[in-house]
Amino acid sequence: MFEAVELGRQESKATFKTKERQIRGELLKIQRQLREAGRPVVIIVAGVEGGGKGELMNRLNKWLDTRGLQTHAFWDDTDEERERPGHWRFWRCLPPRGEIAMMFGAWYHDPITRRVLDQISEAELDQEMLRINQLEQMLIGDGVLIVKIWLHLSRGVQPKRLKKRLKAPKPAPIRRREKKLAARYDVFVDVAERVIRLTDTMESQWHVIEADDKRYRDLTAGQVLLSVLQAALQEHRRGDRRAVIHHLAAPVGTDNDASVLDRLDLSLALDPDEYRKQLSFYQRRLNELAWSAYDQKHSLVAVLEGWDAAGKGGTIRRLTAAVDARLYRVISIGAPTDEELAHHYLWRFWRHLPRAGYMTIYDRSWYGRVLVERVEELAEPFEWMRAYREINNFEEQLTEHGVMVAKFWIHISQDEQLARFRARESIAWKQYKISDEDWRNRGKWDTYVQAVNNVIEHTSTANAPWTLIAGNDKKYARIQVLKTLCERLEASVGSGTMEV
Amino acid sequence: MFEAVELGRQESKATFKTKERQIRGELLKIQRQLREAGRPVVIIVAGVEGGGKGELMNRLNKWLDTRGLQTHAFWDDTDEERERPGHWRFWRCLPPRGEIAMMFGAWYHDPITRRVLDQISEAELDQEMLRINQLEQMLIGDGVLIVKIWLHLSRGVQPKRLKKRLKAPKPAPIRRREKKLAARYDVFVDVAERVIRLTDTMESQWHVIEADDKRYRDLTAGQVLLSVLQAALQEHRRGDRRAVIHHLAAPVGTDNDASVLDRLDLSLALDPDEYRKQLSFYQRRLNELAWSAYDQKHSLVAVLEGWDAAGKGGTIRRLTAAVDARLYRVISIGAPTDEELAHHYLWRFWRHLPRAGYMTIYDRSWYGRVLVERVEELAEPFEWMRAYREINNFEEQLTEHGVMVAKFWIHISQDEQLARFRARESIAWKQYKISDEDWRNRGKWDTYVQAVNNVIEHTSTANAPWTLIAGNDKKYARIQVLKTLCERLEASVGSGTMEV
Repeated sequence: MFEAVELGRQESKATFKTKERQIRGELLKIQRQLREAGRPVVIIVAGVEGGGKGELMNRLNKWLDTRGLQTHAFWDDTDEERERPGHWRFWRCLPPRGEIAMMFGAWYHDPITRRVLDQISEAELDQEMLRINQLEQMLIGDGVLIVKIWLHLSRGVQPKRLKKRLKAPKPAPIRRREKKLAARYDVFVDVAERVIRLTDTMESQWHVIEADDKRYRDLTAGQVLLSVLQAALQEHRRGDRRAVIHHLAAPVGTDNDASVLDRLDLSLALDPDEYRKQLSFYQRRLNELAWSAYDQKHSLVAVLEGWDAAGKGGTIRRLTAAVDARLYRVISIGAPTDEELAHHYLWRFWRHLPRAGYMTIYDRSWYGRVLVERVEELAEPFEWMRAYREINNFEEQLTEHGVMVAKFWIHISQDEQLARFRARESIAWKQYKISDEDWRNRGKWDTYVQAVNNVIEHTSTANAPWTLIAGNDKKYARIQVLKTLCERLEASVGSGTMEV
Repeated sequence: MFEAVELGRQESKATFKTKERQIRGELLKIQRQLREAGRPVVIIVAGVEGGGKGELMNRLNKWLDTRGLQTHAFWDDTDEERERPGHWRFWRCLPPRGEIAMMFGAWYHDPITRRVLDQISEAELDQEMLRINQLEQMLIGDGVLIVKIWLHLSRGVQPKRLKKRLKAPKPAPIRRREKKLAARYDVFVDVAERVIRLTDTMESQWHVIEADDKRYRDLTAGQVLLSVLQAALQEHRRGDRRAVIHHLAAPVGTDNDASVLDRLDLSLALDPDEYRKQLSFYQRRLNELAWSAYDQKHSLVAVLEGWDAAGKGGTIRRLTAAVDARLYRVISIGAPTDEELAHHYLWRFWRHLPRAGYMTIYDRSWYGRVLVERVEELAEPFEWMRAYREINNFEEQLTEHGVMVAKFWIHISQDEQLARFRARESIAWKQYKISDEDWRNRGKWDTYVQAVNNVIEHTSTANAPWTLIAGNDKKYARIQVLKTLCERLEASVGSGTMEV
């Protein structure tokens, strides 16, 4: 989930100056409009220790009109607060109509902290998330706009930040707790992922922002805030009080939009000898592991996604060549059947889930909803936006049942794709593989890149991670997929060693 | 929650015949319309053992057009099902667009059973409810209409029903489980209450139906189904795909509408001597208990509701006369202040929550939302309907924090109210207590009765139950309130004995 916001995006001082002026003007304008409309706003800023929640709050305080704007931190609970139900402290701080309340961590801080420090169980965390959803649903029903911002720092950057911060004056107990949380970065990130996933609801969405560069962080947060508030105001003007306001802020882009795909080294390749050697090794290994998985009743769901002509089909053939045909099924996802169209889009995938001990390989998958259907505008924004959540819930049910979920995106460069398209056209028996549609899709390359990035951002979870494969060299790509599958299966069936 | 559907309502054979013909015609019509609109429907029938889920399903099967109608039971999971994630079995049964699926218990049966048999913890139950909410939200987002019916049997009726049923042919393991569940009636009802409360969401509401009389049960279920589907169809025709469909089925009434209030014996009274004796006893006792509660840091929230002139004020004065003035606050709820109006309606009640060890007595309360605001049409139906849920969540937070919640409805007859109004008009120093509004409210007596009934139905929970007080005799009523408070406090601070 967080890989997609570990791209090292930055903003120069000069751009920042220009953009800041613009955002600030727009924010003041929308603040005034919301005040007139009598809509209260709750801005929640949460995130990893050292992410700069305080700095961002200060910046927003500077940008916005401080009349009708309150900032609330929930450091230690007072006697007064401890003696009342947990949410009492938040009710004290709720903004009246037309005003804005900014909250550090709000109702998220405490459950996350307690889970990270192992003071509550996962079920208890989930229970608290159910309660948070109820609270937010109630507020939203009453007309409150909730904007939730999560600041993420990559692992390497955190210690540097914290070192600086520990010099700042702060109460000793707070400092101790912050240190403890920072020491558990990995656990913290896992818990955060779960919390975000469970509370990223139809009515109130999370916005995860890369916080390594302060200027990028603040500008992006400002843009998120702006676009959510603008969308909400538009809804408000339509005037259907019964319609739940969907904070349909489309993912916010910046000029220097980097992508997770850029981080792949497309020059990676294997020479034919090495390829043959590794192929035979991993195929043999995969076959063994498939039988072990069968014995132990572990199932596998593999998802192959990637550009047209990225080599998904060839890769799948190398997989299936390895595994006993009784143990797997390949499901190629094309246009849905009539029957499939008459159901929820996930229905066609639930149908084919493997029994215990078997594997299903999906050649394209449910991610079509947030890739092709999004880009081709076959699904409405509110449909594909909520699909991230639906997909996460779906995959969580698989992994909690013990099904291993392996997802691959095979990436190739635009040039490589062109070369492969041309080759297909010139080889008679490959001509069926290329159509006008492929050429059309190619025209939307950048939109697809954005969509892939959002997919990684929202759906790469600890239990069902995405593996990005450098695919310009087909041989290299195939081995990577085989190897990853072997590793995942190995971890699951927990047997044998693996050496080339 | 279930008291309000333990009224012994019945339907005669003749009325049943007439109404059945009508409902059936309407159901067939709406089924056709929904088919044309391409909206799938899921009807979930759940409830206590012996409630007649099967009989109702059979009846619905008879009423509806069986083309495009499937019935699904989830008795024992098959191998096929066990080897896949828990929800797989339900996905198999989801109806395609335009068709109807009726499900026995659906996704509710298994978690409820497992919790009743103590196989999962409360947190795990809640976790499953979170997942159910996600599932239903996803289906509803996709256009599925979900109608959830809960059949309730009162404690006394169940054994009779089960005896009959155990003679019916059925697999032995099922029979054993049903017996086990029936033996735990009280636990079952508590778990059911929690499940209903947590999954009675904005998008998909529960309808609890009294199942003691089969004709009443089936007619009411038919009417519920009809009104939910009609409301949904109306929404559908408005055509805003983004609006979440609220199943705004107003509570369904029947001709023989009984009320929980009818069960009170209004002739109950105390003679003056006995009253004085008991008053002095309970006041002394309440004073002791208030101090014990203070010592042990137990808080109390008492809610006094009732008809105009029911004697709330006089009762409260008898309470406060007993307790040290430092320990309580009385909050009289009149028209909200400007500041209160600028917040969620619950905000004004959160403000006054007592600290640990103290008590707050609310003279009228948050129930105004679902009583006066509903009847006077100051709140829109979708607002007061969701308020039951909001109030339950609010009170759950109180009780989970250890705050005791005691709620009283003081009931008087219409004649008694008239007599009291007249008396007020004739006594100079009481004239301020009677206004035109009181006379107006009186005209809406029946509507209020319906509203009170729905309040009990939705908000009388195991932890925050309603106590209905027969109030025609003021003395009797005051003693009942004092006594109930003493008993509740006693259970909470767990000290001393109580004898008159």
